[in-house]
Amino acid sequence: MFKPAGVHTLIRQTHEDRVLRVLREHGALTRGEIADRVGLSRTTLSEITNVLLERGAITVANATGGIRAGRGRPAERLVLDPGAGQFMGVDFGHRRVRIAVSDAAHDIIASGAEFYAADSAWPERIDSCFRLIERVGEESGIHYGALQGIGIGFPGPFSPRMPKPAPVADGSSAVPAGELVFSSFVERFDASVIIDNNTRFAGLAEAIWGSAAGTQDLLYVRLSDGIGGGLVVGGQLVTGASGFAGELGHVSVSPSGVQCRCGKRGCLETIASVPAIFAGCTAKGVPIHSLDDLRAAVAKGDPIVASVLRDAGDALGRVLGSVAVALNPREIVIAGEVAQIADVIFEQAVATITYELLPVPEAAPHVRLAKLGDDDGALGAIAALFHRSPLLASYPETHQPDHQRGSTQRNIS
Amino acid sequence: MFKPAGVHTLIRQTHEDRVLRVLREHGALTRGEIADRVGLSRTTLSEITNVLLERGAITVANATGGIRAGRGRPAERLVLDPGAGQFMGVDFGHRRVRIAVSDAAHDIIASGAEFYAADSAWPERIDSCFRLIERVGEESGIHYGALQGIGIGFPGPFSPRMPKPAPVADGSSAVPAGELVFSSFVERFDASVIIDNNTRFAGLAEAIWGSAAGTQDLLYVRLSDGIGGGLVVGGQLVTGASGFAGELGHVSVSPSGVQCRCGKRGCLETIASVPAIFAGCTAKGVPIHSLDDLRAAVAKGDPIVASVLRDAGDALGRVLGSVAVALNPREIVIAGEVAQIADVIFEQAVATITYELLPVPEAAPHVRLAKLGDDDGALGAIAALFHRSPLLASYPETHQPDHQRGSTQRNIS
Repeated sequence: MFKPAGVHTLIRQTHEDRVLRVLREHGALTRGEIADRVGLSRTTLSEITNVLLERGAITVANATGGIRAGRGRPAERLVLDPGAGQFMGVDFGHRRVRIAVSDAAHDIIASGAEFYAADSAWPERIDSCFRLIERVGEESGIHYGALQGIGIGFPGPFSPRMPKPAPVADGSSAVPAGELVFSSFVERFDASVIIDNNTRFAGLAEAIWGSAAGTQDLLYVRLSDGIGGGLVVGGQLVTGASGFAGELGHVSVSPSGVQCRCGKRGCLETIASVPAIFAGCTAKGVPIHSLDDLRAAVAKGDPIVASVLRDAGDALGRVLGSVAVALNPREIVIAGEVAQIADVIFEQAVATITYELLPVPEAAPHVRLAKLGDDDGALGAIAALFHRSPLLASYPETHQPDHQRGSTQRNIS
Repeated sequence: MFKPAGVHTLIRQTHEDRVLRVLREHGALTRGEIADRVGLSRTTLSEITNVLLERGAITVANATGGIRAGRGRPAERLVLDPGAGQFMGVDFGHRRVRIAVSDAAHDIIASGAEFYAADSAWPERIDSCFRLIERVGEESGIHYGALQGIGIGFPGPFSPRMPKPAPVADGSSAVPAGELVFSSFVERFDASVIIDNNTRFAGLAEAIWGSAAGTQDLLYVRLSDGIGGGLVVGGQLVTGASGFAGELGHVSVSPSGVQCRCGKRGCLETIASVPAIFAGCTAKGVPIHSLDDLRAAVAKGDPIVASVLRDAGDALGRVLGSVAVALNPREIVIAGEVAQIADVIFEQAVATITYELLPVPEAAPHVRLAKLGDDDGALGAIAALFHRSPLLASYPETHQPDHQRGSTQRNIS
């Protein structure tokens, strides 16, 4: 068959794009790992990586950063040129905003946090964040000139697929907070912006860099002031039809239980959230008002506190077990400082999950404690950028500046 | 910028491929609907569809088949050339096998069923199916010469991502039934073969052609001898990490309830499956041994039977409500003849689901009865073929005959 001139060029470019995408999504990989993921022979792949190395688009990763599996000389790992772009993750929590900045090689090159009052208004929080970004830039010498994408974790339901609120005429007070955050960043930065729920992003970070690294199917829960969660199904972060996926705190456990702020009775949040655990201990005669109080009571081996924690772990296990029967995840990750402090929550949750599961060994997920720290939400936001970038196809409401919009369509227009 | 010769040809071919893929996945669409889905202007799209119409790759759909929305002349709808290929869906149930054959335009051109004993062995069932395929071919004049794909619904956990069983030396008795079915079809037919759980396929059929048509996020449950389910999340059929996703029958409802065959107590299946409902009525003094008995008792308005059915609906609603809080689906579909016979199951399930949900109107899914009949599993298997074909990318264990494997890579090698 006649092949018109230029076809080889296009094919090579397609291969190059796939290699670059795999490195963008996964960070440092050996040539063999790249070849497997891209579906090319080792020979073809080597030709392509040689061209990319020569051109400076990729570089050899620092060998000390990797984990040496097996003996012998470790295989050389390749990464995107760190200078090829910067990505920022932002996590707005109830009492602080945290940012992390990554280069294209997945190395965190700067980070920081700024605290605010839990009742502060959104315009204030956004201003805090902008000040934080400036301060971190000055401290680290980053001018954000190569900033390609910003991922924003937001403390509430949010969906890229959620319908936009109707425009309002009388000012910004009626604009939902998520929209306000999104548009503030779009106006300020010449970069792609995506926004999603911050607990969901923290779950994604655990699935990529944390204790469930590499999984395609994760059920993630975080015990905090409330209880939130995140789901990764078939490698996709699940937002749900209207942004509410992962609200595990409001699954019923005890229909005749305590009244929940959502209106039902006996939600998981009324038993296993941090305030519910404090209240449970206090009501049983052991006043607990802080995580430090709890840590002391656990260290002392207080049996009343242990029983409250065990009930919390059991309720948690019932919800996670039920959802795991429905979804058959590979990994379950439990996050939240309270779970780190009180082993019994995790132990009891594992026992109850095991009871709830189908009696089939292949169907059993691993259950683990979360590994990442307070920057998990910001890291997850960066992970989402790496996985969506450059097309950000699953984020239809994403803002993309014009110069990027052009370049991302290079292959089809 | 210099554009090498041949680039325009490649771009046009890419556009054509995308138009054909959209028609393969969705069936008949207007030019406007195609343009929206492919992301091309109406003008560019018209040029492409004109070329495809001239070449005979697509054709104008029969106008009478469509639903006329609004007034005025309905817009012309386009479909793939019906002669471009055939697709077969097979559904192995506990007591029958059913097949449906579709052309490339999504029209069912033949179908049939063959019954076998519930305890018959798998080689017998497979033989029954092959006889059925021959008989249906003779009756309809189809010679399966254009058969491109076969989708097989299997009554048990199955995952395209499940590890293959170890090969056995001493004959076929140790080969799991799913593997036996799969390899029997691969040996017999020169077509792509995919296999998955049949209830999951039935759910997919409801999401594409049934009462939840068009949704990307479905929670599906079927009340039968057991209780199975299926999940569609972000447009993907969910198999789970090891093929067990959707086993809603084994979510616990009543920890102190009746012993279930899985070993736990109080699973949904012990309350809302058909045998559980019969046993519940019989234990309360109203002997029910068949769906006809149940139909008669419902027609009579028996209050004991009504209370058993209401308890079944409540248990069903609790499980669906909990999973819906975790997943935030757009649609919930309840299938199974018993739900069609006894309105009160559905009514009570809707009431309980509504209670369990977050009190946020946007988060509320539609709850519906299933619309498709006994061929839902076979139709879902065909739907899976349309959505995976031609690359069948999410089915890594899929068998693809050599002549197809070559053609699917046309654009990249």
